[in-house]
Amino acid sequence: MKFGMIGLGKMGMNLVLNALDHGHEVVVHDVNPEPVQTLAEKGAIPAESMEALARKLSRPRVVWLMVPAGDIVDQVLESVVPVLEEGDIIIDGGNSHYRDSISRAERLGDRGLRFFDVGTSGGMEGARHGACFMIGGDKETFEQHLEPLFRDLAVENGYLYAGRTGSGHFLKMVHNGIEYGMMQAIAEGFEILDKSEFDFDYEEVARVWSNGSVIRGWLMELTRNAFAKDPRLEGIRGVMHSSGEGLWTVQTALDVQASAPVIAMSLFMRYRSLEDDTFHGKVVAALRNEFGGHAVEKK
Amino acid sequence: MKFGMIGLGKMGMNLVLNALDHGHEVVVHDVNPEPVQTLAEKGAIPAESMEALARKLSRPRVVWLMVPAGDIVDQVLESVVPVLEEGDIIIDGGNSHYRDSISRAERLGDRGLRFFDVGTSGGMEGARHGACFMIGGDKETFEQHLEPLFRDLAVENGYLYAGRTGSGHFLKMVHNGIEYGMMQAIAEGFEILDKSEFDFDYEEVARVWSNGSVIRGWLMELTRNAFAKDPRLEGIRGVMHSSGEGLWTVQTALDVQASAPVIAMSLFMRYRSLEDDTFHGKVVAALRNEFGGHAVEKK
Amino acid sequence: MKFGMIGLGKMGMNLVLNALDHGHEVVVHDVNPEPVQTLAEKGAIPAESMEALARKLSRPRVVWLMVPAGDIVDQVLESVVPVLEEGDIIIDGGNSHYRDSISRAERLGDRGLRFFDVGTSGGMEGARHGACFMIGGDKETFEQHLEPLFRDLAVENGYLYAGRTGSGHFLKMVHNGIEYGMMQAIAEGFEILDKSEFDFDYEEVARVWSNGSVIRGWLMELTRNAFAKDPRLEGIRGVMHSSGEGLWTVQTALDVQASAPVIAMSLFMRYRSLEDDTFHGKVVAALRNEFGGHAVEKK
Amino acid sequence: MKFGMIGLGKMGMNLVLNALDHGHEVVVHDVNPEPVQTLAEKGAIPAESMEALARKLSRPRVVWLMVPAGDIVDQVLESVVPVLEEGDIIIDGGNSHYRDSISRAERLGDRGLRFFDVGTSGGMEGARHGACFMIGGDKETFEQHLEPLFRDLAVENGYLYAGRTGSGHFLKMVHNGIEYGMMQAIAEGFEILDKSEFDFDYEEVARVWSNGSVIRGWLMELTRNAFAKDPRLEGIRGVMHSSGEGLWTVQTALDVQASAPVIAMSLFMRYRSLEDDTFHGKVVAALRNEFGGHAVEKK
Repeated sequence: MKFGMIGLGKMGMNLVLNALDHGHEVVVHDVNPEPVQTLAEKGAIPAESMEALARKLSRPRVVWLMVPAGDIVDQVLESVVPVLEEGDIIIDGGNSHYRDSISRAERLGDRGLRFFDVGTSGGMEGARHGACFMIGGDKETFEQHLEPLFRDLAVENGYLYAGRTGSGHFLKMVHNGIEYGMMQAIAEGFEILDKSEFDFDYEEVARVWSNGSVIRGWLMELTRNAFAKDPRLEGIRGVMHSSGEGLWTVQTALDVQASAPVIAMSLFMRYRSLEDDTFHGKVVAALRNEFGGHAVEKK
Repeated sequence: MKFGMIGLGKMGMNLVLNALDHGHEVVVHDVNPEPVQTLAEKGAIPAESMEALARKLSRPRVVWLMVPAGDIVDQVLESVVPVLEEGDIIIDGGNSHYRDSISRAERLGDRGLRFFDVGTSGGMEGARHGACFMIGGDKETFEQHLEPLFRDLAVENGYLYAGRTGSGHFLKMVHNGIEYGMMQAIAEGFEILDKSEFDFDYEEVARVWSNGSVIRGWLMELTRNAFAKDPRLEGIRGVMHSSGEGLWTVQTALDVQASAPVIAMSLFMRYRSLEDDTFHGKVVAALRNEFGGHAVEKK
Repeated sequence: MKFGMIGLGKMGMNLVLNALDHGHEVVVHDVNPEPVQTLAEKGAIPAESMEALARKLSRPRVVWLMVPAGDIVDQVLESVVPVLEEGDIIIDGGNSHYRDSISRAERLGDRGLRFFDVGTSGGMEGARHGACFMIGGDKETFEQHLEPLFRDLAVENGYLYAGRTGSGHFLKMVHNGIEYGMMQAIAEGFEILDKSEFDFDYEEVARVWSNGSVIRGWLMELTRNAFAKDPRLEGIRGVMHSSGEGLWTVQTALDVQASAPVIAMSLFMRYRSLEDDTFHGKVVAALRNEFGGHAVEKK
Repeated sequence: MKFGMIGLGKMGMNLVLNALDHGHEVVVHDVNPEPVQTLAEKGAIPAESMEALARKLSRPRVVWLMVPAGDIVDQVLESVVPVLEEGDIIIDGGNSHYRDSISRAERLGDRGLRFFDVGTSGGMEGARHGACFMIGGDKETFEQHLEPLFRDLAVENGYLYAGRTGSGHFLKMVHNGIEYGMMQAIAEGFEILDKSEFDFDYEEVARVWSNGSVIRGWLMELTRNAFAKDPRLEGIRGVMHSSGEGLWTVQTALDVQASAPVIAMSLFMRYRSLEDDTFHGKVVAALRNEFGGHAVEKK
């Protein structure tokens, strides 16, 4: 089928290549002309403007946004919505907050547009060769217009119509919360190995744990890859950035009164890693000095 | 090759069947005659006593213990060691504490016996059709006498000579610690789904997360299986028992001063789940009543 | 001085009695006529309506709200603001969210009213005999019109002009977050005593820890009181409710990227205590059954 | 009464001065002659050797050890025990592990000596002017020979006969575990203040929280003192050392299957603070790079 892709970063680019492989026609647009050109050379239909994009699609148009979460989604919607017509379909495949998706769907619904919030997992490799999609929106529209596309872009069995609007991004958010916890669990395990009396070959450990163990899975395979490149990770710093979904998961857990100690701790350890020194540490150190005369470390 | 297996519970039984499939000869013994009989019917060589077992093996004998961790290992060693001879090899494939394994290896080494601590992962299914083995002990002995056996019993790429005595059980311990954290992370995710405003089909969620997502892996596939059997897990209670390795991992983290908040919290949530009510909860409830007049719930 | 008090629950009632003791004139109002009557008998000036309250105060009026946080504050403001005049002063002494206080101050400021957000600590006893106040708002107004009142109502050294609007309720919020952590720490300690091999007299333990120890303080004294009434807390359930400030503290920690594991865990343990069984527990139990054949507990 | 004190560090020195103030006769010994001399000048009876110490005391001798926990206690016992006689009393007032105290009591009991494990709290100031004592050992001996001494050295109501041997050090251990949690809770609160949009005067905050608030207590007063000396703690590093009792509390919680998330997290944050960078952080950063192409920070 024919659809439009707006946003040709790492994920958008790979999804288009994936779609082209499966014989779809993709009209592509980006604020940056370079990736448009690159994809045009590989068979995509370039669109230099939103108007061009709309013109090159037939109704109901399917327009997929693959842009960073937040204000950018609203900016892109503002510029693309005027060129769309009643019944057209907009997919937000990025990491938007599910509540934003719910309000966008309402706003767009008032104009007769159909909105889908789609969580995309699997990293760049998945986008290129078979991703995992969690899809929220109108079920009938999904089945009539979108399912074949997701079937092709997903790995086998790798897409789910999750339910009403918001459910796709909600699932993706929780998926990432779990991911935080799993990554921290793996990382703590290797830290214990690293501080132990033994001298393990971490790549080999990740290799054996990737084959037949209870904890095998893609994250363990990636762990192996990482150690293959740098056996002791000596070249990098343990600064753990985060892009928001872990935070949202913890916030949501608080909202719904769910105990989520592991996901929350994973997030706090990331925050902790961003600081060279901490104020709470200073307070504790000062207190130990006050009552027990324990020496503090001077700056 | 020919080796002896002592302990024919869920894991030992499946490992023997696995070995028989690969053409090995297995002399089997258990305190319970039933599984010995079962396996004899499938081609194993039954041994009604330790003496019989030793007699039916040739030197250097390879004797694999697959019994519960703790005193039982020592009891079995006490009864099997007298029938063994210098150079014979003992494998402890169970979940023993790595420090116990180190001291057993020393004790047995004094008698000329060679001891291997082998962590086994992959559950019953793995034991039957291809497990994951983490192996500690003398490297030369391993390569000369044991490697072909582990190559056959393991899934492809699924065994590792980990290093000196203790390293096999240490790796398995940390593996299980990671497992605790990963399971708790997955479980917290589903709890958030369950308390959310959406109405998810958990089997379907676990299905899509098993295909192409970042968090795909065996645990997610098992999650899917669990929901396939009981879509809301209504038939079971959320009591999370533990068998020791998570505890040991946290204890070891404390010993080596490694921060392991996620693994520790996973363990504490398990302990919490064993209690209907808690004393710490009573203290907090009583305190809230004391300073704020907040009502307590009476028993 | 003369001021009005709206809201004569546990805290408001005690603050009025405290103020009367110090020779202040207090015009009192409540939706419920009963406490108004009670206080009138003790020397307060009853006001059957907001109009009456305004009429009985002289400009600039000082009106203190002591009502539950949330919508009720806005409802009371809606009914009291119309009877006030430019320059009048409104104190919110309850547990409002500091962001609500900031927007209320702006809204009321537009009408020429001066708003103070005052966090009140010390429980009912403090309200009655000397509380602790954290005060946000205009500094000059505070010094000119309010300081003597707070000096009288507070315990010695027990009030602080904290800074601009919002800072009073912010401090109170964080105070409560710390309180959650301290209570949970104390409670965990007693749980460890309770599970230990020793047979402690908890009232005596809390008594000795209240005198001379590093952890002495009011919470420990209250712990002693609680055990004095029920030596093993056998009559109450360990259900730990929460009234919002701990949650807000954790949310704020997340907002500002501060690591707050102890306060967060205190909150999660409270949430956990509200449930007889958990969904995350079911998931973990089901998983253990899937890979290891470990028995689950049936409902 | 007359008793001996071995170990004249910060705590021992202050306890002796405290005892002298109360009219006790104290025979003092230390490996270092200097504090012996200092105390002799203040009225204590110097003993240049264990023999001298024993000679200068009358039976049943009361000998108080105030030395660092661990091997040193055993070394001192080895040198003092030979000069003692049946019925003599040994007090270990330091931070020994309660299990060590139990085995020492047994060993010494075999020689007819009576052992008391005494947890001492209140810091140096408490030792000097009134401490808090948690006392384990034989009840009758305590009442006959020791109670008046502890009554004098303790702040009012500040000593407790806790029960059989081990209970004194057990209580002190848990006391310190609670202390870890309370300190971390306070410290997290100030970290949130420090990252907030407000500009608080921390000394003033600690001052107001020390008067009338729910969280008032000695630790908050010490917090105030610390900020009085260095308003933003700019001169010190947030490195949080620990001396063992927090670790023992968490280990004991694990032993008895008590959930102690707050105490455990307090300890883990201390461990974390000892490291400039972490291996677990590297693993997470590397994984984020692997699946999402997120940049890592190079060393």
